[in-house]
Amino acid sequence: MRIDIITVLPELIESPLNHSIIKRAQNKGLVSIHIHHLRDYTTNKHRTVDDYAYGPDAGMVLMIEPIFKVIEKLKSERHYDEIIYTSPDGEPYKQSTANYLSTTENIIILCGHYKGVDQRVREHLITREISIGDYVLSGGELAAAIIVDSVVRLVPGVLSDETSALTDSFQDGLLAPPVYTRPAEFNGWKVPDILLSGNFKEIEKWQMEQAIERTKRLRPNLLKDE
Amino acid sequence: MRIDIITVLPELIESPLNHSIIKRAQNKGLVSIHIHHLRDYTTNKHRTVDDYAYGPDAGMVLMIEPIFKVIEKLKSERHYDEIIYTSPDGEPYKQSTANYLSTTENIIILCGHYKGVDQRVREHLITREISIGDYVLSGGELAAAIIVDSVVRLVPGVLSDETSALTDSFQDGLLAPPVYTRPAEFNGWKVPDILLSGNFKEIEKWQMEQAIERTKRLRPNLLKDE
Repeated sequence: MRIDIITVLPELIESPLNHSIIKRAQNKGLVSIHIHHLRDYTTNKHRTVDDYAYGPDAGMVLMIEPIFKVIEKLKSERHYDEIIYTSPDGEPYKQSTANYLSTTENIIILCGHYKGVDQRVREHLITREISIGDYVLSGGELAAAIIVDSVVRLVPGVLSDETSALTDSFQDGLLAPPVYTRPAEFNGWKVPDILLSGNFKEIEKWQMEQAIERTKRLRPNLLKDE
Repeated sequence: MRIDIITVLPELIESPLNHSIIKRAQNKGLVSIHIHHLRDYTTNKHRTVDDYAYGPDAGMVLMIEPIFKVIEKLKSERHYDEIIYTSPDGEPYKQSTANYLSTTENIIILCGHYKGVDQRVREHLITREISIGDYVLSGGELAAAIIVDSVVRLVPGVLSDETSALTDSFQDGLLAPPVYTRPAEFNGWKVPDILLSGNFKEIEKWQMEQAIERTKRLRPNLLKDE
């Protein structure tokens, strides 16, 4: 899988993309990530990528021309399954979207400046607008890092134990059950007896009950959504 | 405002916390961010922070003892308004939570390992569990970076133009209207005439109509929620 990221702040996402699971995925040759600095696609001598928004409001907007140039260049080199723009008014990002994206071959992620990009970029160049949540960030870089992380870990071979991802929250439409590890007692606080019983069948039953109870109590909408 | 982050992967969030707006906020003395490496609070010679989960499933779980030690140490030094754990089964993070957190003095964010922390941590040490969205990440570090970014930009004095944050998506319960910048025509694609009119009153009316129309079409639940 290949991921191209277009940004005005490449240095901001350097460390998330070069550590832990994302680094391992790249080292194994399972994923390649390419960062494109939008300033490298400007034509004016000040390398300007943004300009004042039309209208009375404060804030700068990313211009269409450099974005058009970098996307056209990438598209001339290979086919892209999705060209994603990260924005708070995109479709809410879900685990099912991560599952789908992990099956694609090539995607582009365009990181928005916090007041956004020229709307014509969204209308003519983008295939999918994604919001990672109902809150505003200072830029789309962290949203891009979130998408990359959630997708890359699902690419077959990335996690050492492939079953790990299957027991995550959301994969079965439920929140995960609570987890415990040693010691069995700390500061007077005990691990539930059932987990110490060694009876895996009973433990799995208990975990499923906990997952359902927690989902009903904390996120009842998850049970209705899918 | 002071933010303490507890993590097993401090290097992963180095770049997001040291660039752009978060860096400026720290340079201005408006926010101080302190990273605590969980391994520095272990007692065994291998500096182990995790162990196998009780039960039949694959996956490691962060142990309670090092987390207990670092949180107790921090709490002995100052009062914390919130001790946050990032987890996919926490309360869904919203702009209103970011607004609230930006008014606090001291918070701790504990980053989960992707199979989670020992449940006793969540029951006895954490005051607030936050999910940044319905998807699974390989760790809580990026979720912590998201919270820090969304909160820090709201701290008074951080954004150069304080009105900027007020016109963001969600602050009035609506998605933001589309934005455009120069040139007025590119590749045959034109900016809407109204924005070129110079009539700010009419432009504001159009923007409000666009914001309402987009919210109704893309995220009708936002209009019911608040």
